[in-house]
Amino acid sequence: MSERAFQDYYPDELSYCYGCGRLNADGLHVRSYWDGDETVSVFEPRPYHTAVPGYVYGGVLASIIDCHGTGTAAAAAYRAEGRAMDSQPPLRFLTASLHVDYVRPTPLGVPLEIRGRVKEMKGRKVVVAATVSANGEVCVRGEVVAVQVPKHWMPQDDPPQDAGRGA
Amino acid sequence: MSERAFQDYYPDELSYCYGCGRLNADGLHVRSYWDGDETVSVFEPRPYHTAVPGYVYGGVLASIIDCHGTGTAAAAAYRAEGRAMDSQPPLRFLTASLHVDYVRPTPLGVPLEIRGRVKEMKGRKVVVAATVSANGEVCVRGEVVAVQVPKHWMPQDDPPQDAGRGA
Repeated sequence: MSERAFQDYYPDELSYCYGCGRLNADGLHVRSYWDGDETVSVFEPRPYHTAVPGYVYGGVLASIIDCHGTGTAAAAAYRAEGRAMDSQPPLRFLTASLHVDYVRPTPLGVPLEIRGRVKEMKGRKVVVAATVSANGEVCVRGEVVAVQVPKHWMPQDDPPQDAGRGA
Repeated sequence: MSERAFQDYYPDELSYCYGCGRLNADGLHVRSYWDGDETVSVFEPRPYHTAVPGYVYGGVLASIIDCHGTGTAAAAAYRAEGRAMDSQPPLRFLTASLHVDYVRPTPLGVPLEIRGRVKEMKGRKVVVAATVSANGEVCVRGEVVAVQVPKHWMPQDDPPQDAGRGA
């Protein structure tokens, strides 16, 4: 793992995401790293992130897959361009679609490991497959279709209809 | 709309869900109602539920679709049995899979309308199609595959491998 998470390189204006923005004081603060050709993140849900007592809420699991997916997409795009994540111009991805399969109940109270793998890169689109595991067992499988935010788009402007969406 | 939301009828032990549990003090408190053959819920994201400034975080949108979907599944199952939601035995659904398409950015600061429609009912499975609209415009489309929690399952026990999952 590298020292700085992918999300630490996001421009300030794009660092308020509830799921992964380092500047969102109320957020989940998903932090993602390279681990060889895969990406990894460790997340520990709060006690109130429950579905039924003892198990993690599916919407939080969808959220951490979402942000780990867009983070993985950004990191993979820099890697494909052969440059570091602190080089210019910055690349940032948003979610076009998200699919989550809840394979088995996810226990609350243990760290969850999210792993991502780039399945497809084509133009501005990156498809990331992800798993969430607890105690070494896969509990959730997900897929994120991430789309690159155009360079000219700033948060103050209207985002384009074909790009800025989920995460 | 009926006066009590679907979620008000959930048994206490199953009312701690972060997305919709009335007994989860920190939760989102999604509340769903019948509107003819569709179901409807109105949700106003908090200011910190942001993706990029001014727009709603996709994980929260996935969450409200998730809980409105399982609520719709429960209400539809009671209706199919021709009985009221406060009759016994209670029916409760959990999420097996969730799909979300972010059609356009969802503005923050306005009430969101979530609408659900039962697409399929088969045995213990209910598939619910959902939309999230802001200012009368559909921003998100989703689908929830919900599975009925078996009658014998209580939260203290291990949930079955083929049922208790997301919401």
